[in-house]
Amino acid sequence: MSKLEEIVSLCKRRGFIFPGSDIYGGMAGTWDFGPLGVDLKKKIMDEWWKFFVENHDNMYGVDAAIIMNPRTWAASGHIATFADPLVECKECKSRFRADKIADNISESVTTEEFLATRTKCPICGKENWGPIRKFNMMFRTHVGAVLPDDDETTVEKNVAYLRPETAQGIFTNYKNIVDTIYPDLPFGIAQQGKAFRNEISPRDFILRDRECSQMEIEYFVRPDTWEENFEYMRKMQHEFLENIIGLNSENIHEFEVPAEDRAHYSKRTIDFMFDYPNGEEELMGLAYRTDFDLSNIEHESGKSMAYRDKNTGETFIPHVIEPSIGVERLFLAVLSTAYAEEEINGDKRVVLKLPENLAPYKFCVSPLLKNKPELVEKAKSVYSQLRNKYGNVTWDDSGNIGKRYRKQDEIGTPKCVVIDFDTLEDDTVTIRDRDTTEQIRAKTSDL
Amino acid sequence: MSKLEEIVSLCKRRGFIFPGSDIYGGMAGTWDFGPLGVDLKKKIMDEWWKFFVENHDNMYGVDAAIIMNPRTWAASGHIATFADPLVECKECKSRFRADKIADNISESVTTEEFLATRTKCPICGKENWGPIRKFNMMFRTHVGAVLPDDDETTVEKNVAYLRPETAQGIFTNYKNIVDTIYPDLPFGIAQQGKAFRNEISPRDFILRDRECSQMEIEYFVRPDTWEENFEYMRKMQHEFLENIIGLNSENIHEFEVPAEDRAHYSKRTIDFMFDYPNGEEELMGLAYRTDFDLSNIEHESGKSMAYRDKNTGETFIPHVIEPSIGVERLFLAVLSTAYAEEEINGDKRVVLKLPENLAPYKFCVSPLLKNKPELVEKAKSVYSQLRNKYGNVTWDDSGNIGKRYRKQDEIGTPKCVVIDFDTLEDDTVTIRDRDTTEQIRAKTSDL
Repeated sequence: MSKLEEIVSLCKRRGFIFPGSDIYGGMAGTWDFGPLGVDLKKKIMDEWWKFFVENHDNMYGVDAAIIMNPRTWAASGHIATFADPLVECKECKSRFRADKIADNISESVTTEEFLATRTKCPICGKENWGPIRKFNMMFRTHVGAVLPDDDETTVEKNVAYLRPETAQGIFTNYKNIVDTIYPDLPFGIAQQGKAFRNEISPRDFILRDRECSQMEIEYFVRPDTWEENFEYMRKMQHEFLENIIGLNSENIHEFEVPAEDRAHYSKRTIDFMFDYPNGEEELMGLAYRTDFDLSNIEHESGKSMAYRDKNTGETFIPHVIEPSIGVERLFLAVLSTAYAEEEINGDKRVVLKLPENLAPYKFCVSPLLKNKPELVEKAKSVYSQLRNKYGNVTWDDSGNIGKRYRKQDEIGTPKCVVIDFDTLEDDTVTIRDRDTTEQIRAKTSDL
Repeated sequence: MSKLEEIVSLCKRRGFIFPGSDIYGGMAGTWDFGPLGVDLKKKIMDEWWKFFVENHDNMYGVDAAIIMNPRTWAASGHIATFADPLVECKECKSRFRADKIADNISESVTTEEFLATRTKCPICGKENWGPIRKFNMMFRTHVGAVLPDDDETTVEKNVAYLRPETAQGIFTNYKNIVDTIYPDLPFGIAQQGKAFRNEISPRDFILRDRECSQMEIEYFVRPDTWEENFEYMRKMQHEFLENIIGLNSENIHEFEVPAEDRAHYSKRTIDFMFDYPNGEEELMGLAYRTDFDLSNIEHESGKSMAYRDKNTGETFIPHVIEPSIGVERLFLAVLSTAYAEEEINGDKRVVLKLPENLAPYKFCVSPLLKNKPELVEKAKSVYSQLRNKYGNVTWDDSGNIGKRYRKQDEIGTPKCVVIDFDTLEDDTVTIRDRDTTEQIRAKTSDL
């Protein structure tokens, strides 16, 4: 198995992540977080919120609806351009994202360019293609009382989309924030929440899923200060990823997106690439979006997005620096960093070396033997003591002690505390360290 | 204005909740949480998670995808029965939920029964109705590469729904939890997340919205112990609502749903009703669902949902007790409880008497005058001191001191700390209490 497959297997075995709707044969591109996955995801999201929002006086949170007025996606350009090149095999009717099955072509590939690659169908092996068509990746739905026999105009009038990004829920609330709070520039609006993309071929575990959680900030600045604010945000991202989340800086690579590959409105974009088990992939993006979004909203809504500087009285549309990260991409970066296979005394062990602030449990408490009531009773009392003090403590009395260590290693518990017969005599316990596997004795009162 | 209208107005004015997509004229049934609303919502959700999940050894969290395999909704009965009675006025083409525009009819009203009520169209005043039709409230979408010119069979094959409840994301993961953790009975699986209902006529602010957040637990028990576990869960709900969230017990009324109104599989259901500003409305539900859901999943998936008792070796499908609450309903219950209008020395004031664990900020720090640098500097140092200690502290130097108190009262800040010229002399500050409006002097070191 590849390292990624090992991680997927660990995630399922230990209850971090299960394939979505597994009981019914699955639902491609969706994943369900199990007990440990919910915990890790929540810790990652809470650390982000604390670092970027709660620790700053000039950051404001919003939580906008997933179903927004469809004019949002007209203004943002998503209805016109949020599309992937779809190609159909005329023989077996399979559909593919053209730029993923042929080499060296881009998302804007034409039919002629694609045919010139002489690609064969990955399913049936034939080479008989239909034309390239643009497939919009927004999920469509209908809002309100639409009935099956309604005419097309009525139905179309009620079309809405699941948001493909959280960013527009921020931009559409910019005026609400300015009107209610009127903060000085620069200020940021942050949002965490689900976003949906109808990927033609979801793949790579949680890296390219149809439903993901995003964490985005739109940082509003005076146009003439964009460069210093871009640098500030860039520094903040590294600080968060490395000092708070514990990624290794040598696994993060900044890719300065060249002008010809940037969105036309962006004057600068840095993709933060990460060394995932299957290779380098985008972890997050940092983009200078100018006044593109607010100007589009002003145009579409007819309402002024101007900001009036309290000191100078100047009026202008703020420019925007946007750091954007997917929770699942960060989750997988954390797991990839933590995951290790080691040989201990000739035995292989799998261990998740999660940082302490992210590990689901701080301690595991066990009685050495399960069938000795005096050990179990003492262990329960140590367990209660630690639980009252730290909260996130787990209990394990299954199997033998070696099996328990193996399990706790796999879920990343930093310390295992074992109660044995000596504990009953001198109130000391064995503390076993996840990373070194070293064991020390300590008084229960010192824990 | 009614009390509910006053609360809606406060929510918008102070940045708790804005109408969804307001900038584009709105999107009926959706709401965007602003900075203070995000904070309050997060605190409510975190308190629930801590109380019901983290504080118990036998509670497990999941976070399932919103888009599930559609067989989920066949098995659960939602495709067949999750529908409201829709009626159309043949004159003006307006559509309504029949049981909401006529008195004394139920959701299962027939066309004849509706016509007999002699209801007139609320829009045009005519009485010319089409037949009652069942309108399924699940939002439909299509997953995967479906193109506009695909035939109906292809399109139908790719239909999926936005989940109308979080509960089924729990039931479909029951086997994953049993297989990975194998917990003793009783144990619970908990989930927080979005759910979507395409209400024909969304109304009553956030009480009947199209997109809401739910917090649900499925508590799996031995069939012969359902009554004691039902009582246990019932007690837990009161403890949470009253001791943790601070609702008044006299505003919560248990409604024992009579057999004829219960879902056919439920042997007992209690609706927890709350005295909202506009009258009594459901706050949450507690239902004994027997083995209805797991049996349906077993039937639909062909996979055994049996649980094997570790001690007795017996094999059976566990029964389920389900407490289910909507975050927005609880949010509004919290605001309704906290909201007060009072007269202080002849002036009216609006105050949110939020419990300390839910208030967005613990303290507000202000310099008495904004244009005295020595006061501002001292106030900034007190602000930093409190922020380092408590985290959630706000700064306010806008307007005069009376205006600031009014604002902090409206957002529920328990204490305002004001730095004046005496502070510079003797290091004491004024502390003003939100609820009593009383002011005391204290040393900054005692804060």
